[in-house]
Amino acid sequence: MASSKRRFWLGFDLGGTKMMAAVLDKDFKILASARAKTRGREGSGEVLKRIQAAVEAAIKQAKLTPRDVAGIGVGSPGPLDLDHGIVLHAPNLGWRNVHLKDALEKKFKCPAVVANDVDAGTYGEYRFGAGRKARCVVGVFPGTGIGGACIYEGRIIRGKTQSAMEIGHIQVQADGRLCGCGRRGCLETVASRLAIAAEVASAVHRGEAPIMRDLAGTDLAAIKSRTLARAIRAGDKTVEAIVRNAARQLGTAVAGVVNLLAPDVVILGGGLVQAMPTIMLEEVRAAVHRRAMKDFLPALKIVKAKLGDNATVIGAAALAADRGKAS
Amino acid sequence: MASSKRRFWLGFDLGGTKMMAAVLDKDFKILASARAKTRGREGSGEVLKRIQAAVEAAIKQAKLTPRDVAGIGVGSPGPLDLDHGIVLHAPNLGWRNVHLKDALEKKFKCPAVVANDVDAGTYGEYRFGAGRKARCVVGVFPGTGIGGACIYEGRIIRGKTQSAMEIGHIQVQADGRLCGCGRRGCLETVASRLAIAAEVASAVHRGEAPIMRDLAGTDLAAIKSRTLARAIRAGDKTVEAIVRNAARQLGTAVAGVVNLLAPDVVILGGGLVQAMPTIMLEEVRAAVHRRAMKDFLPALKIVKAKLGDNATVIGAAALAADRGKAS
Repeated sequence: MASSKRRFWLGFDLGGTKMMAAVLDKDFKILASARAKTRGREGSGEVLKRIQAAVEAAIKQAKLTPRDVAGIGVGSPGPLDLDHGIVLHAPNLGWRNVHLKDALEKKFKCPAVVANDVDAGTYGEYRFGAGRKARCVVGVFPGTGIGGACIYEGRIIRGKTQSAMEIGHIQVQADGRLCGCGRRGCLETVASRLAIAAEVASAVHRGEAPIMRDLAGTDLAAIKSRTLARAIRAGDKTVEAIVRNAARQLGTAVAGVVNLLAPDVVILGGGLVQAMPTIMLEEVRAAVHRRAMKDFLPALKIVKAKLGDNATVIGAAALAADRGKAS
Repeated sequence: MASSKRRFWLGFDLGGTKMMAAVLDKDFKILASARAKTRGREGSGEVLKRIQAAVEAAIKQAKLTPRDVAGIGVGSPGPLDLDHGIVLHAPNLGWRNVHLKDALEKKFKCPAVVANDVDAGTYGEYRFGAGRKARCVVGVFPGTGIGGACIYEGRIIRGKTQSAMEIGHIQVQADGRLCGCGRRGCLETVASRLAIAAEVASAVHRGEAPIMRDLAGTDLAAIKSRTLARAIRAGDKTVEAIVRNAARQLGTAVAGVVNLLAPDVVILGGGLVQAMPTIMLEEVRAAVHRRAMKDFLPALKIVKAKLGDNATVIGAAALAADRGKAS
């Protein structure tokens, strides 16, 4: 029956290492999902094929057909052309100027929208998670890098053509370490998982973190968020001190964002927070209370993300639905 | 005739040392204005009387009566209760919990709106000045302190009950000087007129700024923005170096704001910029180009405010008119 058609949304989370497609109903409940490795090195053509296969797998698993899908929302890394749905360049994917929106619309014959992955995840938390109905939500996601987003009165704060809220590239040290962006002393160089892993690996090399030495040695690629959490639980005080110091600096930067945007809710998510929620929340809250305007504190909550790894697909699907309403 | 009534707007700029009332026509052109000293020390009752007298003087000068005024917009310093038009506390005025909106509405029998002075000034620039029709405008006004504001898609970014965008209280030095807000190392402690004056006065005391020594001596209260400009024009290299260094640090903080909000226009105004536009713009532009995300630069302009001392009365009047439309 025609009336049964196009009542479902497709949310897609395109990550540097893995991807996830989900089919959602009109209440944005996930009905089915499919995951795959991204394998960016194989080139955009191959990755696009894998994206389409994951979408098809999720639709099939939900016992639907592409004609049941009203729209597709994608959360993607990298500088984007938001209005045209183009991934301008994504170092993690090895992509340049990939017309993702066009490719999906052509293949699945429905409207598609491409959003920044952190924007999509924060929008998901705003609509259905830890930031529900808040006037102003700031999302901060420390992981390999540090993502940020802001939903202000229901709208994603964005740049003219691109995503905004690059909290990871605020300068926190005048003459600090080199960042992936080419500048020095960005927040990412002191408070990302990668920055913490580098500091921990140095401590292991100096013989100061015996538990981590047994868990991961001096290979910083082996020092994941969960490895850090495990070492701390096992009593590695050096690792705990390093993580707390990084979280404190993250909190000072968050305080700066609070001083500008006076949000009602700051949501902390991402790998480090999922692995060590108590430590991360404690240190960020303490730093914000130390550094933010006292007048802004009564209206402010600092909380953990609720939707976990599903935030991006849920938020992206909701954005696809919003776009449908607006047009 | 009834049709001629209530077609004018009253804009008011309540400053720490002086106040200004202006009558504006429906196109927000200033028809008449009146100025007075604020004299906050005399208490809120006396200041309220002087505010009312200035409003009456401006109306009279425009050859109108209070019944011609459709609404009053006030730009005020200090933490405000925006929705109720209450000045919660304004150190410069010596005020606590002054119900400014109520007092004006009672006296002049028309709606009044109380906005933060920097918000009102930036809104004025957005509507009629250097930020006209921009999607996202950030206003930065270094003076005795450092004010900030953001107009995003036509709306002032604000807190739940208060004004936001406290750029002056972003931390720029981990263990810096004591700020008026009670914390250390805020941008105001390195880049405000007061911070510059303190550094210049020290240089004078050490015998390093001979031209400024003759102009103002070591009394930092005598080192106004115009005094700084005069010393630099007369060739005082020490003063110029101090001002440039402060402007550079201001620019680094502005770069942080740019990395978050990706604005189309950053407007620089206030006393320091009015007195030394070239130096301030040069240093801020250079620092932003050094520190902001490269992807955000093509869409960004950094410009001087256009409306000067009239920005706040014009913006406040326009906000009063907007409020009228919205209700």
